[in-house]
Amino acid sequence: MALLDAAAQGHSVAGATAYVTLEPCSHHGRTGPCCDALIAAGIRKVVASLSDPNPLVAGQGFERLRAAGIEVEVGLGAEEARELNIGFFSRMIRKTPWVRLKAAASLDGKTALADGTSQWITSEAARTDGHAWRARAGALLTGVGTVLEDDPRLDVRLVAAPRQPPLVVVDSQLQTPPTARLFAPARPVWIYAATPNAFAQSALEARGAIVRYVANPQGKVDLAAMLRDLALREVNELHVEAGHKLNGSLLREGLVDELLLYLAPKFIGEGLGIAHLPNPAGNLTRLDQALALEFKSVEALGPDLRILARVAGRDRF
Amino acid sequence: MALLDAAAQGHSVAGATAYVTLEPCSHHGRTGPCCDALIAAGIRKVVASLSDPNPLVAGQGFERLRAAGIEVEVGLGAEEARELNIGFFSRMIRKTPWVRLKAAASLDGKTALADGTSQWITSEAARTDGHAWRARAGALLTGVGTVLEDDPRLDVRLVAAPRQPPLVVVDSQLQTPPTARLFAPARPVWIYAATPNAFAQSALEARGAIVRYVANPQGKVDLAAMLRDLALREVNELHVEAGHKLNGSLLREGLVDELLLYLAPKFIGEGLGIAHLPNPAGNLTRLDQALALEFKSVEALGPDLRILARVAGRDRF
Repeated sequence: MALLDAAAQGHSVAGATAYVTLEPCSHHGRTGPCCDALIAAGIRKVVASLSDPNPLVAGQGFERLRAAGIEVEVGLGAEEARELNIGFFSRMIRKTPWVRLKAAASLDGKTALADGTSQWITSEAARTDGHAWRARAGALLTGVGTVLEDDPRLDVRLVAAPRQPPLVVVDSQLQTPPTARLFAPARPVWIYAATPNAFAQSALEARGAIVRYVANPQGKVDLAAMLRDLALREVNELHVEAGHKLNGSLLREGLVDELLLYLAPKFIGEGLGIAHLPNPAGNLTRLDQALALEFKSVEALGPDLRILARVAGRDRF
Repeated sequence: MALLDAAAQGHSVAGATAYVTLEPCSHHGRTGPCCDALIAAGIRKVVASLSDPNPLVAGQGFERLRAAGIEVEVGLGAEEARELNIGFFSRMIRKTPWVRLKAAASLDGKTALADGTSQWITSEAARTDGHAWRARAGALLTGVGTVLEDDPRLDVRLVAAPRQPPLVVVDSQLQTPPTARLFAPARPVWIYAATPNAFAQSALEARGAIVRYVANPQGKVDLAAMLRDLALREVNELHVEAGHKLNGSLLREGLVDELLLYLAPKFIGEGLGIAHLPNPAGNLTRLDQALALEFKSVEALGPDLRILARVAGRDRF
């Protein structure tokens, strides 16, 4: 794109240095090999932050550039480039998407009143920011409980977006209503179920949904298998907006990488929590059994706070 | 103190300008009138941020200075000076201390495991900071539930302090054990009770406690009356470290001015919340019934966050 843009503006890039985050590819994917384009454009030197995380192709791009007489330097801004592409690295190395769990809560950790009312805990500034995170995700994920209770659209509305990310619904019994508002023209909907139901399945497929069965021994959706399947569908970053049950299951099974938490300056008292998180052996008995996180950033968004916290150690892969 | 320090260092302040946060007093308190000291030292000009909030004395200090030929300017840094002295202004204007409720919680809003275990949710950096806030307070406050469950010392240990702040215990039935660790030499302990009990009272008084009875019609401690009494004892800032029941009562009765909340990067799941906060009419049914706060500051303390949030509108008096 940069080479095309330069040409369109009448600039020659012959003899120039190209700065790239990732090793230019040497294979045909959705586009032709980037290496060939750089060589053809007469680039003299390539500075790349990182080599390709895919062990099958790593280094081949650099080799091809060097064979064409182009100087190659690797490593500048490596840490920042990895953060920028962490979903891609996750999918390439771990074979699962980078899973970001979003929640909006009061300062006392409640996401809804006891009767389920949750619109709106946070400000429009926070909700708009949340849509920007939806827009950058490879797919959004929710549970059928949220679909049945709130009938959300779960799309990108408050910020401009070139496309609506696919929506993934965890729905063991295929209870998603074909009339749900989440269905929209040209919006991919992927439903992961556990119990086959041909009738419900065909009604959902008639609405454009793709249904996959991945059951665990408990007759629920095998969430880890679902993530592996989503990686095969080329989802790099998965953005989760679900209720406290599905949030709890994902956290308990060690499938969440980071939390995107919007905290509103209010106390609700009795209400629903962020994640139903029982210890497999019952309640925690020692504080060191708590799920360990690390704060990555805290920002003010209008009257609210946005906290990005990473599950400890999850980014070391 | 500043004038004495200058004299001790051999500096003359004759003709100098004195910058002070508050109108110099014209009456004898614990010390002689500041006005007289400024006049005697030959100060030429006084720049004061604020006039005395006590309506009975406001302006008299400035008048006395002007009568002595000293130029007086008022208003510079007024907002900052009021924040610095907010407890003093609260006591003078509202006749109650400024009430700061401190809590340490996990990111999902839990202050303890379901079995009550709470040592330690936050890091040593956060706990040390908490002791600095204890040290600046006019008094610390806790409930008998915390005394019976945790037997805390509730004193200042992790930072240097010229004195231990008095400890206030809300103890309707005088259940505080005379053997509790909170009793220490030269440490004032004030117990507010509801039900007279001469036997328990004398055992506690033998440990140096001062017992006051302030009952409400429900047979509990009248918390609002207690705060008025603490103001009479010249408590400007009251630092609350209590359990979720007393926290909830103080919040529900509209007696808390700000929250000092340490958030640890962990999820606990099932556990005890920051404040038991039922609506008088049951659970909340609308989000606008939630207790409204305003974030004042957010700081990183080691791995934790320190959030200062003010109950909306409480600082407008």
